[in-house]
Amino acid sequence: MVNVAVDVMGGDNAPVEPVKGAVIAVNDDRNIKAYLCGRKDVIEAELKKHNYPRENIEIIDCTEIIDTGEPPVMAIRKKKESSIVKGLNLVKDGTCDAFVSAGSSGAILVGGQVIVGRIKGVERPPLAPIFPTDKGMALLIDCGANVDARPSHLVQFAKMGSIYMEHVLGVPNPKVAILNIGAEEEKGNMLVKETYPLLKNCPEINFTGSIEARDVPKGAADVVVCEAFAGNVALKMYEGVGSTMLSALKETFTTSFATKMAYLLVKPALKKTLKRFDATEYGGAPLLGLNGLVVKTHGNATYKEISTSIKQCVTFKEQEINRKINDIINVLEQ
Amino acid sequence: MVNVAVDVMGGDNAPVEPVKGAVIAVNDDRNIKAYLCGRKDVIEAELKKHNYPRENIEIIDCTEIIDTGEPPVMAIRKKKESSIVKGLNLVKDGTCDAFVSAGSSGAILVGGQVIVGRIKGVERPPLAPIFPTDKGMALLIDCGANVDARPSHLVQFAKMGSIYMEHVLGVPNPKVAILNIGAEEEKGNMLVKETYPLLKNCPEINFTGSIEARDVPKGAADVVVCEAFAGNVALKMYEGVGSTMLSALKETFTTSFATKMAYLLVKPALKKTLKRFDATEYGGAPLLGLNGLVVKTHGNATYKEISTSIKQCVTFKEQEINRKINDIINVLEQ
Repeated sequence: MVNVAVDVMGGDNAPVEPVKGAVIAVNDDRNIKAYLCGRKDVIEAELKKHNYPRENIEIIDCTEIIDTGEPPVMAIRKKKESSIVKGLNLVKDGTCDAFVSAGSSGAILVGGQVIVGRIKGVERPPLAPIFPTDKGMALLIDCGANVDARPSHLVQFAKMGSIYMEHVLGVPNPKVAILNIGAEEEKGNMLVKETYPLLKNCPEINFTGSIEARDVPKGAADVVVCEAFAGNVALKMYEGVGSTMLSALKETFTTSFATKMAYLLVKPALKKTLKRFDATEYGGAPLLGLNGLVVKTHGNATYKEISTSIKQCVTFKEQEINRKINDIINVLEQ
Repeated sequence: MVNVAVDVMGGDNAPVEPVKGAVIAVNDDRNIKAYLCGRKDVIEAELKKHNYPRENIEIIDCTEIIDTGEPPVMAIRKKKESSIVKGLNLVKDGTCDAFVSAGSSGAILVGGQVIVGRIKGVERPPLAPIFPTDKGMALLIDCGANVDARPSHLVQFAKMGSIYMEHVLGVPNPKVAILNIGAEEEKGNMLVKETYPLLKNCPEINFTGSIEARDVPKGAADVVVCEAFAGNVALKMYEGVGSTMLSALKETFTTSFATKMAYLLVKPALKKTLKRFDATEYGGAPLLGLNGLVVKTHGNATYKEISTSIKQCVTFKEQEINRKINDIINVLEQ
């Protein structure tokens, strides 16, 4: 059995989509038990809409909610009855293997570290969103809240990202590259220059060198290693350009009768194309290196992203990712 | 008269497009004199295709070419007869007001600093590409080669960018923001946290706070201040996502007879939309803070970007941008 705590109060579409996502996940895989964290009456009302095996869903009554705007450290400390704190505690005490939330990134990142805790030897737990590329998907590691990383952190990110990409997302021998401002080895800021030779001498990963941001959406690497500030800029620029171009495109199709006709003709093919670029198709971002799995989905996640994320927790457990991370960090590093 | 040295041997479309761009610029504005830097026979052959006032074009014979792949410092030192070195020397010795090139970024950045030299008081000359947003355009400053900037550098970037945006690109009282990973003042890496209060206390600029990368394409700020590594990541991700989405879109329109029909119907409106997102429409990136103007266009620049860039040199001179930069850096900073 894989036990997954699901934050039902987090994200733009709570509680409807998280509950629906959990119901679909347990219907698809009876080896999953979902612990729905949120207000009991709200969850009960939602669950009435669905059919599901009773023994695969449990309600964890949480009377508080952490808002996206709240200072994370304070929120985690004070709101003991919130869905995030209670959900993370289920992972800590071993009741659950994983926690999935569309809620406050800051609170999830802080709570993951403070409540669930790091695997011994892991210096920093990186947040690693998956995003669509021309060839499939790539893992951008780290996009979390801990900026100003050191070279040793980046080496650990590379190792953990490589394990996740290979064993959870099924990309054999994933290409690992470091985000840089040029392809040559001597390019980069001090952090990249110091990290590059360390990665090059790392036998556990398939290091392919530097990658420029422009080649990331083209799928030139499977695991893109970076410090969280640069990662955050890359990720959010990706999302920003995508959504800006998309709304311009929508506008274009509504300018005249002819363009509206055009839209009808191209709609099925266009939907297929846009689906490829929809980050929410690929599941949430794992916070790696913790004593358990914590997954942050997009704030606007629908049931699909939630259920995909819950199902990835099964692969995570089955593939013993944390044992593998522990091995690569603690044994092979020495 | 505004004298502009134009590198005819640089970029993917040399010599055809740079020559055409220069010819168009001098035809449009007889106050421009273009100094075409490149191989004399090549330029003469190209010029035969065009009509132009003879006194507005001069050929500077340059027997060497700096390739994009060459190590910049060495190239600048050794290739004295290259179009980049000779063009920059024309600015240095006062023959020209500006130098425009689609050639090696590295060589232009190094050469700009070494040959043309910095305005007194300017700690670092930033490269500031203009890029399209939903509301028009924005200046991303710095995207150059000097990474690991200090807070004082970023403050100078903000001031110089603000002057360029207002007086060359005509955006009154431009909104200046700092690229960050969250909107709150306490967010960011050490550099941003140290720079933020300095910008806040800077009466010469209209500082509006932090901007997340996702809001940059939406046009939330006119001048986006950042350290060059982050700027480079943001810029290249912008270009990468744009071109990846564009080719996917093209593919979509060729999947069936229906989608091909759709393309014919939407083509005029679509072209208009795509033009808005075409960075080459807006002219090249100025390297600010030098004793003269150096402009780097895209490597794939066509005549249009070259001629726009040349014409922006006129505004740059007329608006006395370098005097304004000198004033803001040396007088107001004390």
